[in-house]
Amino acid sequence: MHILIIGAAGMVGRKLTSALVAAGEVGGNPIGRLTLADVVVPSAPAGFTGKVETLASDLSAPGAAAALVASRPDLIYHLAAIVSGEAEADFEKGYRINLDGMRYLLEAIRLEGMREAYKPRLVFTSSIAVFGAPYPEVIEDEFFTTPLTSYGTQKAICELLLNDYSRKGFVDGVGIRLPTISIRPGKPNAAASGFFSNILREPLSGLEAVLPVSKDVRHWFASPRAAIGFLMHAAELDTSLLGWRRSLSAPGLSATVGEEIEALRRVAGDKAVALIKDVPDARIISMVDGWPKNFSTKRAESLGFRAEKTFDEIIRIHIEDELNGKIGG
Amino acid sequence: MHILIIGAAGMVGRKLTSALVAAGEVGGNPIGRLTLADVVVPSAPAGFTGKVETLASDLSAPGAAAALVASRPDLIYHLAAIVSGEAEADFEKGYRINLDGMRYLLEAIRLEGMREAYKPRLVFTSSIAVFGAPYPEVIEDEFFTTPLTSYGTQKAICELLLNDYSRKGFVDGVGIRLPTISIRPGKPNAAASGFFSNILREPLSGLEAVLPVSKDVRHWFASPRAAIGFLMHAAELDTSLLGWRRSLSAPGLSATVGEEIEALRRVAGDKAVALIKDVPDARIISMVDGWPKNFSTKRAESLGFRAEKTFDEIIRIHIEDELNGKIGG
Repeated sequence: MHILIIGAAGMVGRKLTSALVAAGEVGGNPIGRLTLADVVVPSAPAGFTGKVETLASDLSAPGAAAALVASRPDLIYHLAAIVSGEAEADFEKGYRINLDGMRYLLEAIRLEGMREAYKPRLVFTSSIAVFGAPYPEVIEDEFFTTPLTSYGTQKAICELLLNDYSRKGFVDGVGIRLPTISIRPGKPNAAASGFFSNILREPLSGLEAVLPVSKDVRHWFASPRAAIGFLMHAAELDTSLLGWRRSLSAPGLSATVGEEIEALRRVAGDKAVALIKDVPDARIISMVDGWPKNFSTKRAESLGFRAEKTFDEIIRIHIEDELNGKIGG
Repeated sequence: MHILIIGAAGMVGRKLTSALVAAGEVGGNPIGRLTLADVVVPSAPAGFTGKVETLASDLSAPGAAAALVASRPDLIYHLAAIVSGEAEADFEKGYRINLDGMRYLLEAIRLEGMREAYKPRLVFTSSIAVFGAPYPEVIEDEFFTTPLTSYGTQKAICELLLNDYSRKGFVDGVGIRLPTISIRPGKPNAAASGFFSNILREPLSGLEAVLPVSKDVRHWFASPRAAIGFLMHAAELDTSLLGWRRSLSAPGLSATVGEEIEALRRVAGDKAVALIKDVPDARIISMVDGWPKNFSTKRAESLGFRAEKTFDEIIRIHIEDELNGKIGG
């Protein structure tokens, strides 16, 4: 089978590519061909014996989606997006990349199918940003979508389009609302949510980290490994079980910052915890206040999606996958 | 004040224009200028002493929205849409008119505001088609939007855009999800929902009407007069009370076909009821099965929106507004 990954150069895209290459197949079908696209040319994966093409493509440019779809991939991952902060700061760019990009892709698939029968599986990364405060303590599968950011609005619109194009038989779509990824590998970045990962990742490498909020802040998490697992499972899912509601809130772990820190203490000791410095940041405190705290994801769980149950597990996954099994410092 | 009505040639557009001219003002501001646009040139209203312009404009054509907005109307009604059946049959046309048209309009307003401060009130006619079966017996204000038609998808997307453009301060939006309008004036048409009006309107004029479903079918109604009332009230509403959830399910009347018929009997007698012929239609029976039956509209009611409480009242309004007070036949 031929898989196209749009947004293959990002953290999720790279991990997904590696995982697909390691698996060698999707739903029993050997992966014979990979097309990896992003705004910068993605790296070719190590150890893949099939045909691989890597290319720079801006999905929001007219014609780019049609060029990607012309080779009729069986499975398409659409992971490309600009993040929440940038979509809020640059209104036009957010709509161009996050909304128009999806529409171009869906239209390219529909038009390819009018030329000759074609209905690929399309796995789309949505976001819990489709929801907006005020929330109940636990957000159920049927909670209404009232996004409070342009990013969340764009993702909610993409979900509606994915449903309608699937209902009309033009594509076989699955949308996955990812929890906040933790522990996100790499350097601390400017994202307001970065501290949830920073306070674990940095101490695990012997470095200091800043905690800008109080320890009773609760949020919703899954490891990078779990996120990749969702995307692999979405490719194999029996989508007749979804009806026309093609997007799912993925399972995750609801935990407080204090619980994160106690897990770090259990796995890496007091020395690691001592590297976390409290530096309250009013801007971040106020933003975090509007974020969801907990979900009930019965629908995704009944469909076989799985996430971690404890932060100890999330930390151990980071040590295995990113630190070669060794706590640093 | 200057009012632009897009979709002014339709049934709602014509009645709204007349009602605005009769009122002479909106929220205490005299109406000095009317711009009436539609794909066909709307008629100029009788009895209006201010400036009036009528023009043909296809909102889905690039540049059309900017031309309409260039005169900086204070209040814009966007009523233009192709209906559910047509949007389902012609996928491209539905998205072009119902989605792209709204985006062009919102973008034209935003860009006009970047040239020089501008934030008009925009009243948009949404639809209960943003909801999809299965429904609870009563659809509450916070029920989730899972449309099962392309038309409903397009309206749900427009609602999300209206929220985001309002939140960003580009426009002051209000969306009204209209109930099924009954008694719809004019001739019977091909709309699957037409019979709800036909079985009252035709007998009130001494003509036969066909009933394609059983008498226990329940649905959600408001008169044309109530619908115009919603749109007039939306223009004056204190939108700070809406937060960023700018669309409302309008109040209405939940009634069965049997209740409609008994109201007809009370107002116009057995002779009128005898003109209704049962001709079951499997296609319509199956479609109607997926339509909403009842709503709780506490939010709109608390904001001052009002509809009829009985079908007797709806029938009397039709007799007053369409039949010069006289039952025909």
